[in-house]
Amino acid sequence: MSFRATILTLYPDMFPGPLGHSLSGRALNEGTWALETVQIRDFALDKHRSVDDTPAGGGAGMVMRPDVLARALDSTAPADDPRPRLLMSPRGRPLTQARVRELAEGPGAIILCGRFEGVDQRVIDTRGLEEVSIGDYILSGGEIAAMVLLDAVVRLLPGVMGNEHSGTEESFENGLLEHPHYTRPAVFEGIPIPEVLVSGNHKKIAEWRREKSEALTRDRRPDLWEAYVRSRG
Amino acid sequence: MSFRATILTLYPDMFPGPLGHSLSGRALNEGTWALETVQIRDFALDKHRSVDDTPAGGGAGMVMRPDVLARALDSTAPADDPRPRLLMSPRGRPLTQARVRELAEGPGAIILCGRFEGVDQRVIDTRGLEEVSIGDYILSGGEIAAMVLLDAVVRLLPGVMGNEHSGTEESFENGLLEHPHYTRPAVFEGIPIPEVLVSGNHKKIAEWRREKSEALTRDRRPDLWEAYVRSRG
Repeated sequence: MSFRATILTLYPDMFPGPLGHSLSGRALNEGTWALETVQIRDFALDKHRSVDDTPAGGGAGMVMRPDVLARALDSTAPADDPRPRLLMSPRGRPLTQARVRELAEGPGAIILCGRFEGVDQRVIDTRGLEEVSIGDYILSGGEIAAMVLLDAVVRLLPGVMGNEHSGTEESFENGLLEHPHYTRPAVFEGIPIPEVLVSGNHKKIAEWRREKSEALTRDRRPDLWEAYVRSRG
Repeated sequence: MSFRATILTLYPDMFPGPLGHSLSGRALNEGTWALETVQIRDFALDKHRSVDDTPAGGGAGMVMRPDVLARALDSTAPADDPRPRLLMSPRGRPLTQARVRELAEGPGAIILCGRFEGVDQRVIDTRGLEEVSIGDYILSGGEIAAMVLLDAVVRLLPGVMGNEHSGTEESFENGLLEHPHYTRPAVFEGIPIPEVLVSGNHKKIAEWRREKSEALTRDRRPDLWEAYVRSRG
């Protein structure tokens, strides 16, 4: 079975958006993955089709109602749907390449896109939603975050990147940021490609790349660097 | 002057995409910000319109040529353009809400969207590109990452969120994840809203929210929690 994504959103027209282009768009057309959107507002309970209300205890903004979201989730994904139920939220655990890989090996994902101040905690608890954060910044809603997650997952699905690229020599796959890249021309504005890279000495090239990766990680990402050093004992 | 974004990409048709909807779309229509795309391929130097070539030193994939990218950057943004030049890249420094706020207070951004294995290091160095990462995972290109950055920035531009929302009571603004939210109905599937939130006691509500924020941060984000504890001495 191919990877099936179901997106619950107030903005179904945003999809597939950028996911309809390039690698993910071709894979969508070829049936490597499937994308379905669900308009949350269709599950509202009143004639005004309300999906949100004021926060209990006061404060700015609006909160998405648990009853409306529960109806939308339950009718979209019955309890025996094996797909993980994700809620894109800055309160979530940070998305990692390891989690992306796990998702790509699974049957798909049901993704709830939050809006406004957030989602009533009771629907998160009762429906077992896994809160996923794509980074430490605030978006206007979960839709673009869902696109990030799906783009990362879809490129790892079998056949999407092609055989020339294993996807295992990249940043994060070995715990380090990637080394610098160079290509033609041999000299650009007076600056040559580093000599070692045109030496043909594969062992030296591998050493140079490893050193550059390590230096870059140490400089820019002390958090990753510490984890890397620890993992090597 | 309003915030002006210029995107250099091989996929200009992806834009505005999701940024054309909701808050950012309305702000775009109202002229609160401007979005321009530049097709990198228009600056290719050969009749095949090549933008990439094989990596020096060998390896999988292709690398974007420095000469083509430099031409695209230079003709789009002269040296005296005051806007920061960003390269969306998993090798970059992680995007933070603090950086988002800085960008929102500035004149805009010139954003280069990488594709393939990456970008020749010499154009990064000579054009002073600031590498920005939206998280520790790999996307098929920088386009959706650019949308993330712009969505985060645009919602902070004056007038976009409206007066009812200051944007300062959210996750990360005080170094903590946000507390849980609740709204109507008062009882959902037998679960009531926590009593303190309906007590009307504003001091107790603030204390409860602070405690929940701290507990959530400690549990899910030991990295943020450590920084928070240190910052409070």
